[in-house]
Amino acid sequence: MWGGRFSRGPAGIMEEINASIDIDKRLWREDIAGSKAHAAMLADAGILSADDATAIIGGLDQIAGEIERGEFAFSAALEDIHMNIEARLKDIIGEPAGRLHTARSRNDQVATDFRLWVRSACEDMETALNGLMRALAQKAETHADAVMPGFTHLQIAQPITFGHHLLAYVEMFARDADRFADARRRLNDCPLGAAALAGTSFPIDRNATAKALGFDRPSANSLDAVSSRDFAIEALSAAAITATHLSRLAEEIVTWTSPLFGFVRLSDAFSTGSSIMPQKRNPDAAELVRAKTGRIVAALNNLLIVMKGLPLAYSKDMQEDKAATFEGVDALALSLAAMTGMISDLEPDRARMLDAAGQSYSTATDLADWLVRVPGIPFRDAHHITGAIVALAENKHLALDELPLADMQGVEPRITQDVFGVLSATSSANSRTSYGGAAPVNVKTQASRWLNQLNKES
Amino acid sequence: MWGGRFSRGPAGIMEEINASIDIDKRLWREDIAGSKAHAAMLADAGILSADDATAIIGGLDQIAGEIERGEFAFSAALEDIHMNIEARLKDIIGEPAGRLHTARSRNDQVATDFRLWVRSACEDMETALNGLMRALAQKAETHADAVMPGFTHLQIAQPITFGHHLLAYVEMFARDADRFADARRRLNDCPLGAAALAGTSFPIDRNATAKALGFDRPSANSLDAVSSRDFAIEALSAAAITATHLSRLAEEIVTWTSPLFGFVRLSDAFSTGSSIMPQKRNPDAAELVRAKTGRIVAALNNLLIVMKGLPLAYSKDMQEDKAATFEGVDALALSLAAMTGMISDLEPDRARMLDAAGQSYSTATDLADWLVRVPGIPFRDAHHITGAIVALAENKHLALDELPLADMQGVEPRITQDVFGVLSATSSANSRTSYGGAAPVNVKTQASRWLNQLNKES
Amino acid sequence: MWGGRFSRGPAGIMEEINASIDIDKRLWREDIAGSKAHAAMLADAGILSADDATAIIGGLDQIAGEIERGEFAFSAALEDIHMNIEARLKDIIGEPAGRLHTARSRNDQVATDFRLWVRSACEDMETALNGLMRALAQKAETHADAVMPGFTHLQIAQPITFGHHLLAYVEMFARDADRFADARRRLNDCPLGAAALAGTSFPIDRNATAKALGFDRPSANSLDAVSSRDFAIEALSAAAITATHLSRLAEEIVTWTSPLFGFVRLSDAFSTGSSIMPQKRNPDAAELVRAKTGRIVAALNNLLIVMKGLPLAYSKDMQEDKAATFEGVDALALSLAAMTGMISDLEPDRARMLDAAGQSYSTATDLADWLVRVPGIPFRDAHHITGAIVALAENKHLALDELPLADMQGVEPRITQDVFGVLSATSSANSRTSYGGAAPVNVKTQASRWLNQLNKES
Amino acid sequence: MWGGRFSRGPAGIMEEINASIDIDKRLWREDIAGSKAHAAMLADAGILSADDATAIIGGLDQIAGEIERGEFAFSAALEDIHMNIEARLKDIIGEPAGRLHTARSRNDQVATDFRLWVRSACEDMETALNGLMRALAQKAETHADAVMPGFTHLQIAQPITFGHHLLAYVEMFARDADRFADARRRLNDCPLGAAALAGTSFPIDRNATAKALGFDRPSANSLDAVSSRDFAIEALSAAAITATHLSRLAEEIVTWTSPLFGFVRLSDAFSTGSSIMPQKRNPDAAELVRAKTGRIVAALNNLLIVMKGLPLAYSKDMQEDKAATFEGVDALALSLAAMTGMISDLEPDRARMLDAAGQSYSTATDLADWLVRVPGIPFRDAHHITGAIVALAENKHLALDELPLADMQGVEPRITQDVFGVLSATSSANSRTSYGGAAPVNVKTQASRWLNQLNKES
Repeated sequence: MWGGRFSRGPAGIMEEINASIDIDKRLWREDIAGSKAHAAMLADAGILSADDATAIIGGLDQIAGEIERGEFAFSAALEDIHMNIEARLKDIIGEPAGRLHTARSRNDQVATDFRLWVRSACEDMETALNGLMRALAQKAETHADAVMPGFTHLQIAQPITFGHHLLAYVEMFARDADRFADARRRLNDCPLGAAALAGTSFPIDRNATAKALGFDRPSANSLDAVSSRDFAIEALSAAAITATHLSRLAEEIVTWTSPLFGFVRLSDAFSTGSSIMPQKRNPDAAELVRAKTGRIVAALNNLLIVMKGLPLAYSKDMQEDKAATFEGVDALALSLAAMTGMISDLEPDRARMLDAAGQSYSTATDLADWLVRVPGIPFRDAHHITGAIVALAENKHLALDELPLADMQGVEPRITQDVFGVLSATSSANSRTSYGGAAPVNVKTQASRWLNQLNKES
Repeated sequence: MWGGRFSRGPAGIMEEINASIDIDKRLWREDIAGSKAHAAMLADAGILSADDATAIIGGLDQIAGEIERGEFAFSAALEDIHMNIEARLKDIIGEPAGRLHTARSRNDQVATDFRLWVRSACEDMETALNGLMRALAQKAETHADAVMPGFTHLQIAQPITFGHHLLAYVEMFARDADRFADARRRLNDCPLGAAALAGTSFPIDRNATAKALGFDRPSANSLDAVSSRDFAIEALSAAAITATHLSRLAEEIVTWTSPLFGFVRLSDAFSTGSSIMPQKRNPDAAELVRAKTGRIVAALNNLLIVMKGLPLAYSKDMQEDKAATFEGVDALALSLAAMTGMISDLEPDRARMLDAAGQSYSTATDLADWLVRVPGIPFRDAHHITGAIVALAENKHLALDELPLADMQGVEPRITQDVFGVLSATSSANSRTSYGGAAPVNVKTQASRWLNQLNKES
Repeated sequence: MWGGRFSRGPAGIMEEINASIDIDKRLWREDIAGSKAHAAMLADAGILSADDATAIIGGLDQIAGEIERGEFAFSAALEDIHMNIEARLKDIIGEPAGRLHTARSRNDQVATDFRLWVRSACEDMETALNGLMRALAQKAETHADAVMPGFTHLQIAQPITFGHHLLAYVEMFARDADRFADARRRLNDCPLGAAALAGTSFPIDRNATAKALGFDRPSANSLDAVSSRDFAIEALSAAAITATHLSRLAEEIVTWTSPLFGFVRLSDAFSTGSSIMPQKRNPDAAELVRAKTGRIVAALNNLLIVMKGLPLAYSKDMQEDKAATFEGVDALALSLAAMTGMISDLEPDRARMLDAAGQSYSTATDLADWLVRVPGIPFRDAHHITGAIVALAENKHLALDELPLADMQGVEPRITQDVFGVLSATSSANSRTSYGGAAPVNVKTQASRWLNQLNKES
Repeated sequence: MWGGRFSRGPAGIMEEINASIDIDKRLWREDIAGSKAHAAMLADAGILSADDATAIIGGLDQIAGEIERGEFAFSAALEDIHMNIEARLKDIIGEPAGRLHTARSRNDQVATDFRLWVRSACEDMETALNGLMRALAQKAETHADAVMPGFTHLQIAQPITFGHHLLAYVEMFARDADRFADARRRLNDCPLGAAALAGTSFPIDRNATAKALGFDRPSANSLDAVSSRDFAIEALSAAAITATHLSRLAEEIVTWTSPLFGFVRLSDAFSTGSSIMPQKRNPDAAELVRAKTGRIVAALNNLLIVMKGLPLAYSKDMQEDKAATFEGVDALALSLAAMTGMISDLEPDRARMLDAAGQSYSTATDLADWLVRVPGIPFRDAHHITGAIVALAENKHLALDELPLADMQGVEPRITQDVFGVLSATSSANSRTSYGGAAPVNVKTQASRWLNQLNKES
């Protein structure tokens, strides 16, 4: 395959470690698109005859059909997708096939193919994120006024609303989608024509190939074009950050479906059972989404390690870029789909949520704020007074709004009957009307804003 | 510190693991700026009296002076920078200090402080990257026509130019700077006013504090505002990618300064010696820059792992965000400074580079391209023919341009004397005039374009 | 410092990136011990005069005292702990100080120092793990018969005992301690005498220095001795695995102290409060232990990345080994201490645990097993029958042991009154007497076995 | 599949994310072995009739044959290997198949299967490492006296021998093999009989199943048995450390085969060519081995992240353990095989190595040592004097042994003609006879010791 200088073929183990066809055959569409653009440009530039170009493009289209229909026989001896396709082209059209590789190398070819693939992946992740955001925003709109406990440290902190909680994730996923958009924009330079590493002396038109393949421009430095994989690492970074967001929501679904919380229920379609315990309903999909974080972060870590310390230009180490990227993107795509399904599927138990929202002195802050607002006590003192009242109520095994006024006044005489208006979970949640706050009225506005925006985009 | 509910102080080990003041005291400027903006807004909104606000702001300014002058006594018992400052404020101004924490929590306070810090860090990294790019572009302009071997797989591949090689890194670092700019833009929402997690019932003006602190807008969801750290992870992702680029350049400096390459020389100022071997000149700074990749990638990995699976809203796990981010940013800042110094310092040995550029049949591709261009042989066949000629020359221990024409014609009769015009390293490098190619003329254009742009930015 | 070949001092940034004294001064004890052993050996081998050795050893002892008492002035210009001590030695004893570095290099010196430090760290981690195991086993013995729900997927699965749950962690931590013991054993070769990389022509006695420093033997290959850091990576691997175990226990403490579980209570000494919410009791230490996993795994990742692709022998990259290792070991030591404190401190709420253990049809498996054992139904069928009975009970909002016998018989006629003997949580837990099972009788035996063994070791 | 409680089947996406059969079908041998041992034990314990056990074991043997011959139809709807095999068993033997799952769960079943697989993997890695060590030791024995430059910081440091360099890796790989042996020993407890998480009330004999499957003992705690995956993480740690060692050797092969070093040559069987540059001979296998470090470290990182923060007992997250472990082990196995092939294949160019060993004042340390040994100058002063002599020689463009004695004496009058006996590369290498030093005589002894030991083991 490498021509006249070699007298012996590769060792078996050499072929095994070297062949990438099992991984990179996934790039066949991109490889054929790149070759067609290259051939057309060569013809326009007078480097290739029009007949040869026509033969090549026709042959490539035929190959595309063969692969699409599953009729193509991939060969490990031909190493990779590029050589597999070129060899088949030679079978089909003969001599002109040998002219296609003029003024290019596998180095710029694979860089182009892979960039096209990552570009599509970024677009797909944005679409999938938008789908998940829509599912969250719809559920948030439906349950804008479902009061639930807000937690910090998994301790009940203050009453919030279920809709508000879901919209927090919409914000996160929106930034994730934005990161994929930035990655897509930044990678959209075309390496084709960088050849092996130095460019070429043929009078090629790199703007033409860049345009034909939807790139914004040809890359400005041939060494960079064939040596850099930051575009894939950036996409994996966006994926890893998204994965941590998904893992948090997944953790919450696992917690919420635990019978000791009982906040939400997944339908049978998203629950699994046990081989031994007949009563079990397990949130397996949520756990798997949480676990995929490991895989996706590892894919990022993998490619960063691969690239560490590599001299320019191309080193074979870079062949590992594709497995890592495919694994990370596949795992994220699956996680996003599963999470979208779960969010659409889950139903909150509003009564249990509301009940829990009133536990654990969750409105103590409201009491402290009342002390600031009404008798004008400094917050730090109000905080201390409230702590003492909570301790008293706890000793008496009473909730805050069950504690007699006299008891409160024993701690702080300025407290009046009026305070009971701020001590219920619902009044507390309703009062959080500051911008970005958890009040139902805010949630409705934000959910509706998101749904409008998402519907415009789709 | 946490008011009336607790009857016993923390265990010693509890205080040790819990206190963050050694780490987060670095946020003192941001903390004071945030508190001043909050106090001013509270006064404008009528929540705080003008006198109290004046006292608070004056007290905070005094504290800033004390910290600046190294007179401030930090206390681990007060846990963190927020409590240290608030306690000192109480010492100075008394009762009004207790009113500052109205309508906010440490959760939104620290999220604001840390965002401000990461925002500055992104700006600093952009500036540092621009400085490195300028050093590279200047060196590239000076050595635009210094012919050197281009490598793939650390094998001599084709002649390129030293300037072209350096400009490849300018492209990489430009994308890195762009990533920091994107991270900065995306993080610029103000969490202040999200309070603990739910927003507040006080009539605060979040737009005012956002504006006062240079944010583009207040964050739209209070849970997201206090729970998310993707802004720090994104900055660390940009840092990790930059670190891989630096590690590659560092590896090349190590290789190039090895006497078996001898391509560049670092001055004494950037070389170190050995405690045992008196002759040694070691490129320690390059090796340390390469090694810092480990630290920076680990910082990213650290924070991704910390955030995995955390339920909303704030969990104490997030306190680990600062150590990881500071370590990653510090290591990158040091690496960028050291690399900028080395690049400015290093001098290429142009004669050795040119000599090496002609070794190992580096112009074999030029021969193959000649066979395509002149007699019109398909590239695949030209490649094979050239391979056979290289094998012949190798057997005779001759360079390509030393091999008699007759020998070449023995392999391929259509070769003529004209071929010798493409077989020297210099002619090869000069011929790479396709856009993005290694030819000196391209390098000059690109270096000058970059220098213009960088000078405009600075 | 590097002698006569250099004409200019280092650039400021060079000194800043190069100096390691802030990190490696922590190795002062090991460095002095190594130098004393080296000097004594040189004297015994006739390479150094007895008087010089006496002067050197006396000077080193004096330096040890100075450092111990905080009187030693460390200098960044002297780069590292080795040069700081040697320079001070020269101040104290003059000319003989210059003879100490005979037949050694900083390369073998630092490898020896660091190995000694990691050896101590392995021992300390074993001790700390044993302390944690003892706390767990004691608590397990006390609560051997406290019935609690066993969870899978955070769903209630089967009744178990609190003691059994705690002993599961004793098993994990025992393996962790064993890993540190293996790491300690494997690292115990002495690099001293490997010199820069090649050994030496001086007639040194490496067995003598190895023995004096408590090593099992001198390392067998000088290149390996100065180039390898697998001993530190192995210790960090053991630390990372331990950290995942700690993170799981920490997660459980966070969940168990959540009011919706309410299984355990931490005292005020291990709880923290909120700056805004007066009622909060947060399990901060558990969250910080969970978060430290990020730091410890990152330290491992860091050092693996640093070592990737380094040629033999010493490269300056390896200087990063110490920061990574110190950080990982420190974080683990702190986490182990905090967890030991929390375990000793926490008190289970046995009534709530028992109540929860009976929820969610937790004894469904006992019913299925009864169907296998008494009427001899194949388990798969028994599982299916039990599922149907659970569905029936759920529709009627009844617990399994509240469902009338007639209803059960409607699903499976062979069920008799006898079945009610296996349907309570306590009977279920008591029945798990298979080896390794959760029954109180097993827990008592295992806890007592562990306590005996741990008391023997301490 | 999960019996009577579910009314609807899983969603498509649920099935896709949940099914593990594509990954875990690789455990079929272990699964069948485990089930046979379990069935035999159940019969011995009187829980299963002898006829049923015979039918089950016969059925399982038949299934093993079907899988072996590629006749088994795996089904994603049946989720995993366990359910696939049990379902097929039911097809073959009918009702008794339903009795196999008595007193066990998929949780202990998969823990057992996977432990068996990891045990084999540890054994395989040890074997592969021994093979690589043998190849290295043989090559070292052959080239025990081939003088080459030893490097630090990729600068020529001191002359060593090629054999000594290769034996450094034997030491590393020996420790790696030892780590796999420790991991194997530590994991060899049998989870079978832990059932879902709590053990069982059936009178099972766990010692019998443990023994039948080659385990040392049954695991002592049922929760630990089904919840822990530290055995896989430990194996991946050993793999990751091995990978860093391989990456270093791979980096050296890449450097050594670069024409500017030219130290070794790989045969055509281990070289690859270029699609564009006909002269290229690339060390692709070495680069791929180096790159696999990323994949293997990432696999370790992956599983550590997956396990972080999981509550006991089994969570579905753990299903990700197998993909990560398989990927890490497969990549290591391939890397070890490729490296063994390359080491056996490569031939050093002894003349080039010797020539390089004399460059760059590589014997300066020998001169300094001579100054210590003969005129008795303190090493620090000798180091300084030598530095000055090197600077002088460098200015005169002379090697050390070319510098006239008078010039040396101009720097240090006590130098005599005798010094020239220590200034050649060969004499320097020969002089490193301290234990572990690079002298040929040492290398022969060590290589022969290793070969004897390795031959005994195989």
